[in-house]
Amino acid sequence: MRILSAADIKKVMSMKDAIAADKVALQVYSEKKCNIPLRANLNIPEYDGQSLYMYGYVAPAKASGVKIVSVYPHNIEKGLTSVPATMVVLNSETGEVNCLMDGTYLTQLRTGAVAGAATDELAREDSHVFALFGTGGQAESQLEAVLNVRPIREVKVFDISAERAQAFAAKMQAEYGQKFNVEIKAVASAAQALEDADIVTAVTTAKKAVFDGSLLKRGAHVNGVGSYTPDMAEIPEYVLTHAGKVYVDTFDAVKESGDIIQPIKNGAFKETQITGELGEKLAGFKPGRSSQDELTFFETTGSAVLDLVVSQKIYEAAVKAGIGQVITL
Amino acid sequence: MRILSAADIKKVMSMKDAIAADKVALQVYSEKKCNIPLRANLNIPEYDGQSLYMYGYVAPAKASGVKIVSVYPHNIEKGLTSVPATMVVLNSETGEVNCLMDGTYLTQLRTGAVAGAATDELAREDSHVFALFGTGGQAESQLEAVLNVRPIREVKVFDISAERAQAFAAKMQAEYGQKFNVEIKAVASAAQALEDADIVTAVTTAKKAVFDGSLLKRGAHVNGVGSYTPDMAEIPEYVLTHAGKVYVDTFDAVKESGDIIQPIKNGAFKETQITGELGEKLAGFKPGRSSQDELTFFETTGSAVLDLVVSQKIYEAAVKAGIGQVITL
Repeated sequence: MRILSAADIKKVMSMKDAIAADKVALQVYSEKKCNIPLRANLNIPEYDGQSLYMYGYVAPAKASGVKIVSVYPHNIEKGLTSVPATMVVLNSETGEVNCLMDGTYLTQLRTGAVAGAATDELAREDSHVFALFGTGGQAESQLEAVLNVRPIREVKVFDISAERAQAFAAKMQAEYGQKFNVEIKAVASAAQALEDADIVTAVTTAKKAVFDGSLLKRGAHVNGVGSYTPDMAEIPEYVLTHAGKVYVDTFDAVKESGDIIQPIKNGAFKETQITGELGEKLAGFKPGRSSQDELTFFETTGSAVLDLVVSQKIYEAAVKAGIGQVITL
Repeated sequence: MRILSAADIKKVMSMKDAIAADKVALQVYSEKKCNIPLRANLNIPEYDGQSLYMYGYVAPAKASGVKIVSVYPHNIEKGLTSVPATMVVLNSETGEVNCLMDGTYLTQLRTGAVAGAATDELAREDSHVFALFGTGGQAESQLEAVLNVRPIREVKVFDISAERAQAFAAKMQAEYGQKFNVEIKAVASAAQALEDADIVTAVTTAKKAVFDGSLLKRGAHVNGVGSYTPDMAEIPEYVLTHAGKVYVDTFDAVKESGDIIQPIKNGAFKETQITGELGEKLAGFKPGRSSQDELTFFETTGSAVLDLVVSQKIYEAAVKAGIGQVITL
């Protein structure tokens, strides 16, 4: 059995590889070539916690296993992460446990990669300016993903805390500035972030829109990443009502994301107006952007299919490279 | 995170401890103080396999986690176990993964212990002769459990293969003969096994009764351990129709075990004739043996509640004793 830390995963899996793996995962999902049951949510009321078991089997990727994600808000007070996560990778040919890996970095990687996949499929090829809303734990991989798929020259970071935006931008400039020949800076307002932005990603826990949709540049592509419960909604209704293409990672997303279901409840948007799952576009069943002026939108709430396919690829790469700690039970 | 092999588990958890833990588990289950959802079965048709996720939370025992059991019949041809199993123990206070342990030995231990618990609660105190049917992977822990709860002087082992029965008896004699001051021998027929037997345990994969119930000694106690699917039935209908007490590990057992549901289908037995769950007896809600002559019966098909409570106790004991491999993710 192989044990892989976040550092081990980084050694064997690039963001480009993760984007490719996510594309496979979404396509297989939309083609119904996998078995992904509803995740099991187990409440732990004594500690105000919850443990989620996200398991499944993706035959074409030979991926089988379970991601165990716990949500324990009080962990913060103990100096621990509030969302500990671990991925258990099974051998689909024998049922044995092949690998245990850090699930927190896996989640960041596959979530960045899925927005990267959508951006690659939907954003204009000549996208040069990227606006990023939010600077939490998922922000870095969101940035890295977009930098990998489009020739971005300028990144504008906005956060409700100007201080956090500045610190994050400085750190990211040091990390990615030279590698991608890009300028990454904090901006003072949402409006300033949107100015000239070809690609916009929101990855916040906001309960109302984090920007004014009418300020979006013509032909922009927007990713909604943060809203994974019905009462979270960071994307303005404007995007849903004006986008020429509205893609989701899975149709189940519709049932969990406030970004989608709030406009449906308000009557501003209909479920039938969703263009499709991104996997349907990848499989060639659904169209991409129809013009340089079209506004496109992608909403992701995540799915075990992403964890399964990406973690299996990571495991295979780690075996090949001899990375990780090998233990015997 | 702590990694515990079968050898590690044996170092920190005796059969006596496991029986005590199983009693807690069954009582808590019957008192509805735990959350044990239906196990999730995931078919892996490409390899004729199945992976089962048995997860849950047992608040009074602070036990949270999942046992991953795969059933891959073709593993045998590859020289691998056909039922690989791994237990993942979570920290119920923080949601983090505390421990990974060998699930195969855990299953043997908790399954032996549950029949041991039933024997302890239901068999006559002066039981001296034990008949064991079956010599597969679960047989040793069944033997060990009964030796731990009653002053057994003679064990008679029967198997459809006389050779296997002899080899098993010789091995067990070497292992337990002196420790428990007991004679363990193979016998040539089921009838011979039943002669004078105070306790009878069947742990086979048989699809029809492995002995003639009318040959049972008055006042015997019978454990049915092997039948976990509707078409498996090793216990003669006679036991169900003549037992003064019929206990099950959980009422869900009724839905899976041919030992119980075949006599119900035949009209020979009614579900309402089941005395109760063993946990109800342990909690004091239901009666034990009413006379020295009464035939008593216990059927187990297993439950995640046993895995969760026993594995948490093993983990706690391993931490205390400093046993196992400690790794960092």
